[in-house]
Amino acid sequence: MQATMMKVKLTLTHFLDRAGKLFPGVEIVSRMPDKSLHRSNYGEFHRRSRLLAEALQKAGVRKGDRVATLMWNHYAHFEAYFGVIASGAVLHTLNLRLAPEEIGYIADHAEDRVIIVDDILLPLFAQFRAQTRIERVIVVSLTGKPVPEGCTDYEDFLATASGDWDYPEMEEDDPIAMCYTSGTTGRPKGVVYSHRSQVLHTLVQCMPDGVGIASHDVILPVVPMFHANAWGIPYAAAMLGTKMVFPGPHLHPDDLLPLMESEGVTVSCGVPTIWLGMIQILDRDAGKWKLDKLRLTVGGSAVPEALIRGFARHGIEMMQGWGMTETSPLATVSRVMHTQGEVSEDERFATLAMQGYPIPLVDLRIIGDDGEQPWDGKAVGEIQVHGPWITGSYHELPQSDASFTADGWLRTGDVAAVSKHGIVKITDRTKDLIKSGGEWISSVDLENAIMGHPAVAEAAVIAVAHPKWAERPLAVVVLKAGQSVDAAGLRDFLSDKFAKWAIPDAWQFVDAIPRTSTGKFLKTALREKYRDWKWD
Amino acid sequence: MQATMMKVKLTLTHFLDRAGKLFPGVEIVSRMPDKSLHRSNYGEFHRRSRLLAEALQKAGVRKGDRVATLMWNHYAHFEAYFGVIASGAVLHTLNLRLAPEEIGYIADHAEDRVIIVDDILLPLFAQFRAQTRIERVIVVSLTGKPVPEGCTDYEDFLATASGDWDYPEMEEDDPIAMCYTSGTTGRPKGVVYSHRSQVLHTLVQCMPDGVGIASHDVILPVVPMFHANAWGIPYAAAMLGTKMVFPGPHLHPDDLLPLMESEGVTVSCGVPTIWLGMIQILDRDAGKWKLDKLRLTVGGSAVPEALIRGFARHGIEMMQGWGMTETSPLATVSRVMHTQGEVSEDERFATLAMQGYPIPLVDLRIIGDDGEQPWDGKAVGEIQVHGPWITGSYHELPQSDASFTADGWLRTGDVAAVSKHGIVKITDRTKDLIKSGGEWISSVDLENAIMGHPAVAEAAVIAVAHPKWAERPLAVVVLKAGQSVDAAGLRDFLSDKFAKWAIPDAWQFVDAIPRTSTGKFLKTALREKYRDWKWD
Repeated sequence: MQATMMKVKLTLTHFLDRAGKLFPGVEIVSRMPDKSLHRSNYGEFHRRSRLLAEALQKAGVRKGDRVATLMWNHYAHFEAYFGVIASGAVLHTLNLRLAPEEIGYIADHAEDRVIIVDDILLPLFAQFRAQTRIERVIVVSLTGKPVPEGCTDYEDFLATASGDWDYPEMEEDDPIAMCYTSGTTGRPKGVVYSHRSQVLHTLVQCMPDGVGIASHDVILPVVPMFHANAWGIPYAAAMLGTKMVFPGPHLHPDDLLPLMESEGVTVSCGVPTIWLGMIQILDRDAGKWKLDKLRLTVGGSAVPEALIRGFARHGIEMMQGWGMTETSPLATVSRVMHTQGEVSEDERFATLAMQGYPIPLVDLRIIGDDGEQPWDGKAVGEIQVHGPWITGSYHELPQSDASFTADGWLRTGDVAAVSKHGIVKITDRTKDLIKSGGEWISSVDLENAIMGHPAVAEAAVIAVAHPKWAERPLAVVVLKAGQSVDAAGLRDFLSDKFAKWAIPDAWQFVDAIPRTSTGKFLKTALREKYRDWKWD
Repeated sequence: MQATMMKVKLTLTHFLDRAGKLFPGVEIVSRMPDKSLHRSNYGEFHRRSRLLAEALQKAGVRKGDRVATLMWNHYAHFEAYFGVIASGAVLHTLNLRLAPEEIGYIADHAEDRVIIVDDILLPLFAQFRAQTRIERVIVVSLTGKPVPEGCTDYEDFLATASGDWDYPEMEEDDPIAMCYTSGTTGRPKGVVYSHRSQVLHTLVQCMPDGVGIASHDVILPVVPMFHANAWGIPYAAAMLGTKMVFPGPHLHPDDLLPLMESEGVTVSCGVPTIWLGMIQILDRDAGKWKLDKLRLTVGGSAVPEALIRGFARHGIEMMQGWGMTETSPLATVSRVMHTQGEVSEDERFATLAMQGYPIPLVDLRIIGDDGEQPWDGKAVGEIQVHGPWITGSYHELPQSDASFTADGWLRTGDVAAVSKHGIVKITDRTKDLIKSGGEWISSVDLENAIMGHPAVAEAAVIAVAHPKWAERPLAVVVLKAGQSVDAAGLRDFLSDKFAKWAIPDAWQFVDAIPRTSTGKFLKTALREKYRDWKWD
């Protein structure tokens, strides 16, 4: 017996055509380098994305070829997200925050043939081009200046297309985009997404039990479009026809806040760093901005409960998602579950500060030294995940088997406990756990607690060697401007939250904590810096 | 180049396992024939659905075999929805409202081998069993009475399973359920759903731009579980772990209203007939029931604007969906689109009374005599649809080609115009249009307008032969109890809404309008009754 259902492939070009047909008049706003606003719409987006696809094919780009982008978040990057895919090629979003040598390695490893680059990023491109096999350089003139010799102006490139053109044959498992992990150890590794993986990710992301995005939302993605598909926002936006507000290169809260207000933004997403900066400005100038419809999605690293409470005081809801480049990226979202019943305000914030429950189609388990752990909120182990938008290998790296279990699950390297309600609480990265006198100490728990002190802007905790306890936690702290607290004050602040042995006795007050390109604390740098810590 | 994503099949057993793992304590409430409430939960649902699957396999049911149900909406039907699928068999939900001979034809055509039947429906089963090849009869004792000789008690059947059992191998395109269309012409035709079609339908259904269902909802499906997968509610419920309230055989508004209030129902769905009855009770006893969180989904036939306004006066939101057995069933949902900008209250209700815009993954077009019609709100044609949960054929009916276009779209037989915002407005079934003096008259528009009169409970409009105009509309009207209006009064009521030639000059006032098994007006019966209409 056979099902009688139509055989219809899941392809992102369905979203592109849907946007053009149902939402042509909806605005796409982009902030330019000079801070002016560029206004386009989904009708133009649809037309121009298709022109880009046709022009790429005319320029000799063939199915599966990699087309790189080196771009900020704006209309042309959005067009590249769909135009490259529509041509049958693979969109490779280069992370402009990496060291040039690293970008060069990645572009070479991916065998990028064509690049679309913002004119203001040409100096960066010049620093790594020689490492790559890039033949064709298409430049988006954001400044309005002519593009250099040897490059093609993006608008001229689009003009080579006729508009009388059809999509090539596509399969839903075809590769459509790739990202490299910005791991703190080893060389970056490539993850290759498919039509199918991103269509499914989008559907679940938009559900109320995912992130919850509707067509009447107005979205400002602070998360860069070179970072894990901008958390899927471009795909969701095209499917729903949400008004988009792209911040371009201007990611400072002083720039974001007025833009959010004037364009009526309802959803914004980014790493905690962005919001840690924004909350200080909101607290300073409370009531200055009308943001009553705004809700924030945050991910990329653990979110201090104090930050969630801080935004709640301004009436702004903050939702945490957990995932990684390898998971497209959404794997869990944090919300109070109906299974928890009535919760107190403290329980509510405690829940929101966890990483949340696995979204539909994602399977999740925690594996400890003695196998799969119960969901009791106590037993910890490595999170392993399985699902249709989770990578099962790395691009041309057969030796990456250590990242996968024998039964085909992804080993995430994050250590967590799961509550009886299925809510994940990450205690650490496997390599960031501190083992003191035979007991595990969670650096993440300490960091979040320390960042709950009103004088603290940021805190990172690492393990340093200790003659007696093997390892002890060292807390590296950045104070807020004009605030003060000392180590004794912070130890006191932690005293009712942690066992005595878990509270750091080593403290460093610094001006800034080094970060990875995606805004996470760069703990390898801290470990290097404090490797020879002298105990009194 | 290959994508690196895991190959994970879309299967409904993922939803079953998810329900058991994440939501074991969430309640499943069922009203029994004696009106008592049976309480279960998703832990039991998970365990018992799996026992049913194992027991079916032990009883010799093999992959692809059809297992029929003849049941009202309750916990055991919910278990059958997943247990049958989990065994690898195909769930065939028999429509208990059809004539016994028709049910017998359908069960025979589908080659049903096993049936699960409510004890209170055994007398119905006895009327058609002889037509079928059903070998095994499993009886759910809803009354608590022993099951008859030759039948197996459902609980005894579950007890034959050990619980130590694994799912069989499944492919996402495997058949999992079937429904027969209850067409008013010709023999019923079978539609066979797949894991893939129903998983995708569920994801889009739950999105805010679909029906919008979240885990914290409490759902009471009035729509029978034998009617187009109960509009996908059972699958959505298991995926999200929503509390379920099944009404059993008690579908009268007097029974539904107290149940909705006491169990905290937030979502209910059913055909207009149900809500036409309920609004009269609500209007009579305004304020009696606390239903402030309730929203209604309505479909199956066109929804009068007066009904939507009526519920709005009680603070209850009503959303219309359009589709059919062939479309799983959701194809469009009605909401005010962000593309419409600010709308007046009148525009809002007018929009909600249309059939809505195509949901993601559904492609829709209207085809008139001269090909595809523009989306201008005026040009009409037959709605044709295409998508992964839309049928591309009928079960073992190669001769059904007339239902499909040469390029593989489904011809729905509904006639509509589409606005520039992509909002579908059905004017008629192809066969229900009235052609008067060379002009088309929409019977649906007339019915909805007449039902907007405060004295009218129901109205159906059909074409009757006319010596001069070829056809003229005849309006068949049921008045509300204690209300009165005559033909002249209704013509006057319509005078500012329709062209003079479109207003019926033939009127009949009756006690009831005959209905199909799914609650639609049975226009074939009306046409038969008034075939020899005598014009003055």
